[in-house]
Amino acid sequence: MNQDIFLIGKGQTPFGEHWDKSLKNLMDEAVTAAIDDAPINALDIDFIVVSNMLGERTNDQAHLGAMASSLLPHRPPAIRTEAACASGSVAVHTALSLLESGRAETILVVGVEKMTDVSTDEISSALMGAADSEKDIPSGLTFPGIFGLIANRYMHEYGLTKEQLNLVSARHHANGVSNPNAQFRSAIPAEKISESPNVADPLCLLDCSPVSDGAAAIILSNNHESPIRIAASQLSTDTLSITDRPSLTSFPATKDALDRALEEAEITRDDIAHLETHDCFSIAAVINLEDLGFANPGAGIQLYEADNPTPTINASGGLKACGHPVGATGVKQIVDLTKQLTTSNKRYALAHNFGGACATCAIHILENTDA
Amino acid sequence: MNQDIFLIGKGQTPFGEHWDKSLKNLMDEAVTAAIDDAPINALDIDFIVVSNMLGERTNDQAHLGAMASSLLPHRPPAIRTEAACASGSVAVHTALSLLESGRAETILVVGVEKMTDVSTDEISSALMGAADSEKDIPSGLTFPGIFGLIANRYMHEYGLTKEQLNLVSARHHANGVSNPNAQFRSAIPAEKISESPNVADPLCLLDCSPVSDGAAAIILSNNHESPIRIAASQLSTDTLSITDRPSLTSFPATKDALDRALEEAEITRDDIAHLETHDCFSIAAVINLEDLGFANPGAGIQLYEADNPTPTINASGGLKACGHPVGATGVKQIVDLTKQLTTSNKRYALAHNFGGACATCAIHILENTDA
Repeated sequence: MNQDIFLIGKGQTPFGEHWDKSLKNLMDEAVTAAIDDAPINALDIDFIVVSNMLGERTNDQAHLGAMASSLLPHRPPAIRTEAACASGSVAVHTALSLLESGRAETILVVGVEKMTDVSTDEISSALMGAADSEKDIPSGLTFPGIFGLIANRYMHEYGLTKEQLNLVSARHHANGVSNPNAQFRSAIPAEKISESPNVADPLCLLDCSPVSDGAAAIILSNNHESPIRIAASQLSTDTLSITDRPSLTSFPATKDALDRALEEAEITRDDIAHLETHDCFSIAAVINLEDLGFANPGAGIQLYEADNPTPTINASGGLKACGHPVGATGVKQIVDLTKQLTTSNKRYALAHNFGGACATCAIHILENTDA
Repeated sequence: MNQDIFLIGKGQTPFGEHWDKSLKNLMDEAVTAAIDDAPINALDIDFIVVSNMLGERTNDQAHLGAMASSLLPHRPPAIRTEAACASGSVAVHTALSLLESGRAETILVVGVEKMTDVSTDEISSALMGAADSEKDIPSGLTFPGIFGLIANRYMHEYGLTKEQLNLVSARHHANGVSNPNAQFRSAIPAEKISESPNVADPLCLLDCSPVSDGAAAIILSNNHESPIRIAASQLSTDTLSITDRPSLTSFPATKDALDRALEEAEITRDDIAHLETHDCFSIAAVINLEDLGFANPGAGIQLYEADNPTPTINASGGLKACGHPVGATGVKQIVDLTKQLTTSNKRYALAHNFGGACATCAIHILENTDA
């Protein structure tokens, strides 16, 4: 970061099924909570970045920047960013560049998605917009299908068993029990994961993050301080279709974004105390830990076999237990890591958020300057 | 602008019906043209901003940043921005802030839309995503309907006749004749405008910009120079629904963005030699000229009654004759103004692009440093 930018406010709705609330209602709830949490009033916000993936298709609503702007009395300039399930962290990256550019001093970032109003078929089809419509959709692939292929290949290459893989969702569900905003707050033993319906072999329903509604908001500023400073923000891009990749068992965009983020923050991987990683499917969490360098290739599962891994992994419950309203997830990860750093009084936390099969990867590093 | 940023390359596809080309094909064509036009090679591009409004809904394709990135051999980081029909200029604003932030040195902006693959009903419904889904859609409004109401009110307040209003589309069609990339290159006499089918009284078909496919791209850089410098970039936001506005006959977001843009460029309105303004409907062009201060309220039509107005207005043909692939339009305006400045050797040009009923307004000022 070429200047000090602080996270001065945060808020979110519970994630889950909100049939009684519109996109605007969800944004309003998260935005109000973030402003209440910040040492400013609404009029100090001079720009808004909204993240959302599916509104045009599932809610008949594009142009969410202007809708969010109308929530504030002075209607500051506002835009929307999108990069599939990485939309939230891409919005944060955009907000940071606006602050660094001198075009704004205090920016509201709000991520929102409302997915449960449409059928499972429709939401599955809409989510395939994150993949390559020319290559992946004609083949009949869905995202569970893509990650089922990835899981099969990973098991073939590294000998991972389904019993081992079950530990991922079990851990995330255990972590979600204590998160009041999580969609699912029930502990689920590892052996029950395989008993859930098969979705895309070897992945069962409980290997998959759910369809969710929700919003999360943060306020970033370079003229108001707080203990939480943004230490790095990096994006990386890979091929949209997995059919163009040399390997199914590693996501190079994660490695690239990580290397640049650690360099930007001037820290090493060992300095990270808390990690929120993009566990859209259980196998993704395993691969992510390897690409992030917290485990060797094939050994990611060991961090789920250990009782108290370092860093902590998805202490919020991750996408699996918290829910995954796709436009909100990247923002929510940063909300949760801020809480974790404040509670633990540790210094660094890392948010890893991706879109599609990691065709867009975003990494943010937060620093607790009080630690 | 807090630093010198230059437009070093530009390109576009012809706008029109491209049933044989995908979103990716259209982007590729515009991007290749822009790179060929620039004193760089593709590897110099270190970030991409894509603008698109409807891909998720009409083309089953979100995540267009990653798709655009795959067009270049080194796949630079890429995001998508959206603000309805202002998506293109919002992408330019985002790219400029990324350059000013120091996070990039040479950015490709590519706007794309492919609207003709779906039915008229479907595209009309999709475009209503630019309005307020809670207030405008339930009332049965369409955008022709919204601007029909605006035209009726304007005629009531100022006595504008339909015969006068016809001059707007006639002028834009006349201008489009010499633009090889325009969707329509036929001169249409003013009296023929009213003979086209009535769409939303008093607006006829030829008062409305068409449904179009196309892409436009520019390359912006702070480490390569060209004669065309970006002098200002400003956004402003208004209520999403026109039902929340005090007046139907003026768009305050235009005035606000203009005031800030003129201040940023350190020029006055009189310095502007060429204007491209957002004539999604004929009445919008009239109102825009008033909000931009080139005419008094009620007198915008006088600039169409004059033979050679200053500044030149939509010399490209505007949205009416060029076509309006919504995500591409804001970028295309800047492509055309660059050509106009280079040809005329005048110094300043202004692009005025809006989304919805001017719920998002973006203004860019270009400076020809050779003039």
